[in-house]
Amino acid sequence: MSSPSNYDIVIIGAGPVGLMLSTCLARWGYKIKHIDNRAEPTPTGRADGIQPRSLDLLRNMGLKSAIMAHKPARVYEVAFWDPAKDGNGLVRTGTWASCPSFIDARYPFTTLVHQGKIERVFISDLEKNGLQIQRPWTIKGFKADEGLDPNYPVEVHLEHVDGGQRESVRAKYLFSGEGAKSFVREQLGITITHKDPISHVWGVIDGVVRTDFPDIKMKCTIHSRHGSIMVIPREDNMVRLYIQIASSTDPDFSPRKTATAEEVQASAKKILSPYSIEWEGVEWYSVYPIGQGISSKYTLDHRVFLGGDACHTHSPKAGQGMNAAFLDALNLAWKIHAVEAGLADRALLTTYETERKDVAESLLSFDNKYAKLFSERPPAATEVQAASEQASSASEDNEFVKTFKESCEFTSGYGVAYKPNALNWSPVHPARSRLIHPEGTKLRTGRLMANADVTRVIDANVVHLEQGVPLNGSFRIYVFAGNPSTTAKALKDFALHLTNKRSFFSSYLRPDIDSVSHHETHNPHSLFFTICTVIAARRDQIEIVRDVPSLLARYRDHIYADDRWDRRVPDAAAAAHAKMGLDQEKGGVVVVRPDGYVGVVVGLADGSGTVDALNEYFGSFCSKKLGETLAQL
Amino acid sequence: MSSPSNYDIVIIGAGPVGLMLSTCLARWGYKIKHIDNRAEPTPTGRADGIQPRSLDLLRNMGLKSAIMAHKPARVYEVAFWDPAKDGNGLVRTGTWASCPSFIDARYPFTTLVHQGKIERVFISDLEKNGLQIQRPWTIKGFKADEGLDPNYPVEVHLEHVDGGQRESVRAKYLFSGEGAKSFVREQLGITITHKDPISHVWGVIDGVVRTDFPDIKMKCTIHSRHGSIMVIPREDNMVRLYIQIASSTDPDFSPRKTATAEEVQASAKKILSPYSIEWEGVEWYSVYPIGQGISSKYTLDHRVFLGGDACHTHSPKAGQGMNAAFLDALNLAWKIHAVEAGLADRALLTTYETERKDVAESLLSFDNKYAKLFSERPPAATEVQAASEQASSASEDNEFVKTFKESCEFTSGYGVAYKPNALNWSPVHPARSRLIHPEGTKLRTGRLMANADVTRVIDANVVHLEQGVPLNGSFRIYVFAGNPSTTAKALKDFALHLTNKRSFFSSYLRPDIDSVSHHETHNPHSLFFTICTVIAARRDQIEIVRDVPSLLARYRDHIYADDRWDRRVPDAAAAAHAKMGLDQEKGGVVVVRPDGYVGVVVGLADGSGTVDALNEYFGSFCSKKLGETLAQL
Repeated sequence: MSSPSNYDIVIIGAGPVGLMLSTCLARWGYKIKHIDNRAEPTPTGRADGIQPRSLDLLRNMGLKSAIMAHKPARVYEVAFWDPAKDGNGLVRTGTWASCPSFIDARYPFTTLVHQGKIERVFISDLEKNGLQIQRPWTIKGFKADEGLDPNYPVEVHLEHVDGGQRESVRAKYLFSGEGAKSFVREQLGITITHKDPISHVWGVIDGVVRTDFPDIKMKCTIHSRHGSIMVIPREDNMVRLYIQIASSTDPDFSPRKTATAEEVQASAKKILSPYSIEWEGVEWYSVYPIGQGISSKYTLDHRVFLGGDACHTHSPKAGQGMNAAFLDALNLAWKIHAVEAGLADRALLTTYETERKDVAESLLSFDNKYAKLFSERPPAATEVQAASEQASSASEDNEFVKTFKESCEFTSGYGVAYKPNALNWSPVHPARSRLIHPEGTKLRTGRLMANADVTRVIDANVVHLEQGVPLNGSFRIYVFAGNPSTTAKALKDFALHLTNKRSFFSSYLRPDIDSVSHHETHNPHSLFFTICTVIAARRDQIEIVRDVPSLLARYRDHIYADDRWDRRVPDAAAAAHAKMGLDQEKGGVVVVRPDGYVGVVVGLADGSGTVDALNEYFGSFCSKKLGETLAQL
Repeated sequence: MSSPSNYDIVIIGAGPVGLMLSTCLARWGYKIKHIDNRAEPTPTGRADGIQPRSLDLLRNMGLKSAIMAHKPARVYEVAFWDPAKDGNGLVRTGTWASCPSFIDARYPFTTLVHQGKIERVFISDLEKNGLQIQRPWTIKGFKADEGLDPNYPVEVHLEHVDGGQRESVRAKYLFSGEGAKSFVREQLGITITHKDPISHVWGVIDGVVRTDFPDIKMKCTIHSRHGSIMVIPREDNMVRLYIQIASSTDPDFSPRKTATAEEVQASAKKILSPYSIEWEGVEWYSVYPIGQGISSKYTLDHRVFLGGDACHTHSPKAGQGMNAAFLDALNLAWKIHAVEAGLADRALLTTYETERKDVAESLLSFDNKYAKLFSERPPAATEVQAASEQASSASEDNEFVKTFKESCEFTSGYGVAYKPNALNWSPVHPARSRLIHPEGTKLRTGRLMANADVTRVIDANVVHLEQGVPLNGSFRIYVFAGNPSTTAKALKDFALHLTNKRSFFSSYLRPDIDSVSHHETHNPHSLFFTICTVIAARRDQIEIVRDVPSLLARYRDHIYADDRWDRRVPDAAAAAHAKMGLDQEKGGVVVVRPDGYVGVVVGLADGSGTVDALNEYFGSFCSKKLGETLAQL
């Protein structure tokens, strides 16, 4: 029963994790109560690094250009400085790419713009969907009881921070994006585990400087005899400096140790000497203790969830916080949607914690490794070279190179690898179909689909294949059609068996399918699936009416020619097929989850086999029992 | 003497030409009165095609993203349809790229978005500079008399279109961007010459259709037994159809012939048969006669100027109108700035008419050739192939291929070639310096500088070299520094001689040079020059303090490493040097006009020769006498 005080979800906290979650769900039509205890968005400071992969995601949401309009700083390389051997001053010991060419990124740089500007981009998108953040309000209590109200089992008590107004609402879900000090987490009695017992006190200062230090526009790690500093360039001629003020390894360590802005500036001056540094203005200054921590649970009942800093905290050095928060929210958003819109069984929600907690744990151990990587010994130039190049073979990689590569995957955001589960079918999945994970495929389930340029057939536009479908909550089914004269029957059979009564596709048709506009691009048949067809032929040799079965052709914006040259597979006639590791004659079908991660790869074969395999895949987490070869004919 | 009713310029008409002119001049600090006789910007219809080169220009002005936010249609290819040989229906006889790969374009497509949206992007930029278009106002009279007031010689009488309010103002310049029916042109008695005596009546209709015609999202030229039609895709699922309703070659031709929207729709239906076409909505419909015309003069006294459609009209087929208008305005804007800000002699203004009228004449003869290209015979597939490919050698080109290539240069906007004059020094310029136009250079004076990717040294950002300096009214001096160990002395000498008392550089220093912020990126020394240094070395091997003389190093955002691989010169170690045709050891200096066209190319040599040659170049149009080797020391 819906009432004015019933919501699909109540979201506490309008930082990156809360905003990403509400932006997705608001776009997909959910009713949201979103509160934040601050009177306005982050005015200065805080997180500011957007990873290459997060920029892909923001682009997929149509928000990238609004971020880039702030003219952020872009970090392409990181420089390392150490004391000179003769004891006088500093020397640059090396620089390396923040996203080297062995990672096939569209945007091989980190984007730096302050958190408040990023928050406002989300907030203005929310406003387009009629959602206002309620500020400054806070949460005072909550209780989930499915017995009391199976539809809206969560009762939430909210209060204006001044204590005057109060409000109680009911919701299907409650989400805490409150940050490290999470009221919800405390109420649930969920503990934080500290992976690394060491914690630190950091000083951070944002401002405009005048300096002759040559790398002030680079991200730098500087070690000197007077201490260490990290330099991060910012928009509007600003720079951020991180200085470690205390470490729990210090003999007199106190997590309450502090320092004034002037003291931090004086330290920075000493550390950078003989280079000069004068401050023309300080925008933000803060000192805070931070330790690595991870929440033991992300949810107890799959009704009340935690995400972002409420679940994991780590050092600011690798710039992971906001990016991990985005991916927490994205992971949860589409799963809530799949369950609430009727595609998936409620059990799907259990994969939120397993997937995201596992990633957070890897992140934390990486954070440690990364910190140690340089403290042990400076890498040799040849090692940096080897690590940065695409071509270096795994056998030549020493420990340094391996750690470096891993660290680049992490800091770029492309290192996220969800483990095998119902959504991510590994090559050794015990499914009955032999078509699953065809030989040669380079795609790894649980990881992002490779990017590739293709040409849209109807208008000859060059399209970034992985961006063709916007973040719309749908699974993306990429039919790599190979050579149409080879695959004609397989394609026809594929389209035919999609219409089988109990196929995944027929089982989840839109209820309003008969009144859908012919302009509908992504979801003409089902809200849960968008189909793309990629043909290994030149665009001018493709005739859609002849080469593409009409069911697939209905997605006319998603019929592509695989005819763009790609430097990474320079000899391939069909570069997209080649990058996926699919045969350019025989093709194959790739199912990509709504969040961009590969779910399963299936061979494209004559008969019902391909659709059978997909039925098996979707059947493992869908709400309906899917059939096999029950032809509708 | 400045008074409230004195303006630097009065601009009549807020279409593309007027808006481009006022946007440039408003940014550069001029006082503008800008009127338009329409109550609001173009609501629907009119011009809508932005050429690849115009998109470069809009990007250089920081306006591209605002245009692209409208999600315009992009035309990458053009399709040609003819009656089938058996008389039944239509067949596609070929498609080709609208900007084939032999043109090195950043954006190899035409952008289609309706004129009103484009106008609003300029208007909102004007508002940021405090300028409002005064609407609906019109011009009633004007008189230019330098004797009466040498500073504000032009008197202009303006009136509200309702006739009530009147206003008289004085200005340094008056500009008519009124369109084909220009009051100013008529008052001046300037005649229009019709190059081609044929004129046509066109019907044009914008709307949303439902059709099974497969190329409805492409630009198409369709000939059928029932007539001809041109299809142009638009944003928001719209399409534009042009139908020729009458031609002066018809026996019963009347330029007043007309047709209703329903008649045009009925013709389109016949022409497209057997494909179906149904209209879901019509946004705009118009019938208008058009002939090729060119104004005999663009100005009489270099105080009152014409531009855009007031000077030249042509068929809509090649989508040239708005783009030619932009370039008229750009050409005039920087020249007015150069004269009024004190850099150039007033004689510079004479080059507006010579340069832009010459281009308009080429445009008109191209327009004819282009129309004939297909009426004569359909090209063979091999010819289209040859024409589209970069590699085809000139000797193999037949007349068709040559005309096709020329037409692509025109339709993309890269065909503009200003002839040799004081600004564009040809290789045979009779200048005394032997350094001018060094052997091997591939740059052509009077044409755009080649594009190239480079790496900015201070922050490792990848920069589009030709976009590094925004449209700021300054000449761009690109010092291709070659190999720093080879050119060390030449570079040092170049910087040294720039400071000579009577050099072009020292003669035009900013009056406020001592108070310029150290954050100033483009114009720390002079408002007329921005200097960029491109070093043929890997970024990590460049130390600015060691390799770049301090005068050049002051432009720290413009010190680049020429270390990016380029597919067009795959074997070059220094791709930017190679694309310019400059020796990667010895380098060279390229002067690019404020509008992006190459002015002169000079060798980089030890001693004063390079600066001497630049003094000679700038001396040919500057307001001050520039010296040669009068060292300041």
